[in-house]
Amino acid sequence: MPQRDISKAVIRRLPRYYRYLGDLLSDGTERISSNDLSRIMKVTASQIRQDLNNFGGFGQQGYGYNVEYLHDEIGKILGIDDTHDMILAGVGNFGHTLAKYFSESKKSSTRRFRLVGLFDVNPELEGREVAGIRVRMLEDLPAFLKENPVEIGILTVPANAASSTAEFMVENGIRAIWNYAHIDLKLPESVVVENVHLLDSLMTLSYNLKELKKKD
Amino acid sequence: MPQRDISKAVIRRLPRYYRYLGDLLSDGTERISSNDLSRIMKVTASQIRQDLNNFGGFGQQGYGYNVEYLHDEIGKILGIDDTHDMILAGVGNFGHTLAKYFSESKKSSTRRFRLVGLFDVNPELEGREVAGIRVRMLEDLPAFLKENPVEIGILTVPANAASSTAEFMVENGIRAIWNYAHIDLKLPESVVVENVHLLDSLMTLSYNLKELKKKD
Repeated sequence: MPQRDISKAVIRRLPRYYRYLGDLLSDGTERISSNDLSRIMKVTASQIRQDLNNFGGFGQQGYGYNVEYLHDEIGKILGIDDTHDMILAGVGNFGHTLAKYFSESKKSSTRRFRLVGLFDVNPELEGREVAGIRVRMLEDLPAFLKENPVEIGILTVPANAASSTAEFMVENGIRAIWNYAHIDLKLPESVVVENVHLLDSLMTLSYNLKELKKKD
Repeated sequence: MPQRDISKAVIRRLPRYYRYLGDLLSDGTERISSNDLSRIMKVTASQIRQDLNNFGGFGQQGYGYNVEYLHDEIGKILGIDDTHDMILAGVGNFGHTLAKYFSESKKSSTRRFRLVGLFDVNPELEGREVAGIRVRMLEDLPAFLKENPVEIGILTVPANAASSTAEFMVENGIRAIWNYAHIDLKLPESVVVENVHLLDSLMTLSYNLKELKKKD
C-alpha cells in the first residue's frame, strides 16, 4: 500500500483504532460504518475517514468498513503483523511487572510482543526466573544478542543508569527503546525511543483536576 | 497569575519543563537562559519563550530564568504545590508496582502524590500490607472516602472490571482517575481521566521502528 508521510497525531491514534477494531472482531462484528465507529470511539466520522484515507482508505460507500480487514491492515501499518522479540534491562519493580504482563497476557495484540531476555547488574538476581525467563547479567547482553537478534529493548533501570544502559543496548544492536526511566535519552537518529514517563502523565492529571475544580 | 486558555499541547509539555528545572535545581543551578534551556531540552528557545508566556512569562531580559522560581511556578500551575492523596483499586501486578513506586520514591515530584488506600475485591488480599499500606475490600471504599477525602483514584483493575470500578469511585467522590486499564472510560464531565495505555505506546514504537527500517 503506498503511504504518504503521516502526521504523528494520526500515528498516535492508530493503536486506538486497532484496539477498538480488535474488540469488535472479538464480538463477532463483521463490518461497521464510519458513523457507528465514530459513536463508539467518540471521534467524528470525518476524522475517522480522514485518518484512514492516509493509508489509502479502507471503506466502501454504503458498506462501511470490513472490521477484520481494517484491523489487519492497521496491524500491518503498525508493524505488528509479525511478532517482535524484546529484551528488558532492569529487573526491578517495573521490570518484574512488565515481564509478568507480557508472559501472562492473553490479548492477541500483547502477544505480538515476546519478551525473550531479562538483564540486570545485580549478581543476586543472576539465574533467577522471572515470569519463566532466566535473569542474565547485563555484561552477557552482547553475546545474547549475537545469538538472538532482537530489535526492541525495554529500559526499566534507575534514571542514573538509563543513559549508559541505553547506549550499551544500542551498541549491541537494539534499534528501538521503550523507556520507563524518567529521563529523556540522547541517542543517535538510527534508534527510535518511546518514553513512558508515568509521572508526567500524573502531573497532567493533577493539572486537569485543578482546572476542573476552578469550575466548581 | 492570570491564565488564558492554554492549549493541551502546552500542558503536555509542562511536566517536562518541571522535570528539567527540578534537575537543574538539584544541581544547584540558580538561573538559566532560554537558549541554554533550549539546548538541554532540545526544543527551540522560541518555543520555550512562547510556552512560558502562556503563564505570564517568567524570564527577564538579559538575566534568563530564575530556576527555583520557574520550577515552583510551574509546580503551582500543575497543581502539585500541595500534596495529593490517592487511592488505588486493583492490587494486582501493576497495582503492587505503583504502590511500591510511590512509597519508595525519594523524588520530590513523586512525593507530591501520596497513596493512602489500596482496594481490591479478592478476599485473600484483605488486610495484607503492600508497600506499608493495608489492602481493604472495594466495598469499604465509600466509608474510607468519607473519612479520608481523596480526589485521585488509580485504576489498575482488569479491563472487564474497569468501567464499573471507575463508576464506583466516582459515585464516592473521586474526581480524577489515572487509568491503567486498557480501555477508554466513559465518565461524566465532572471527572478527569488520564490514560496510561502502555500497549498503545509500544505499538507506536513498533510503527516507528518499521519506518526507521525502511530507510536502511
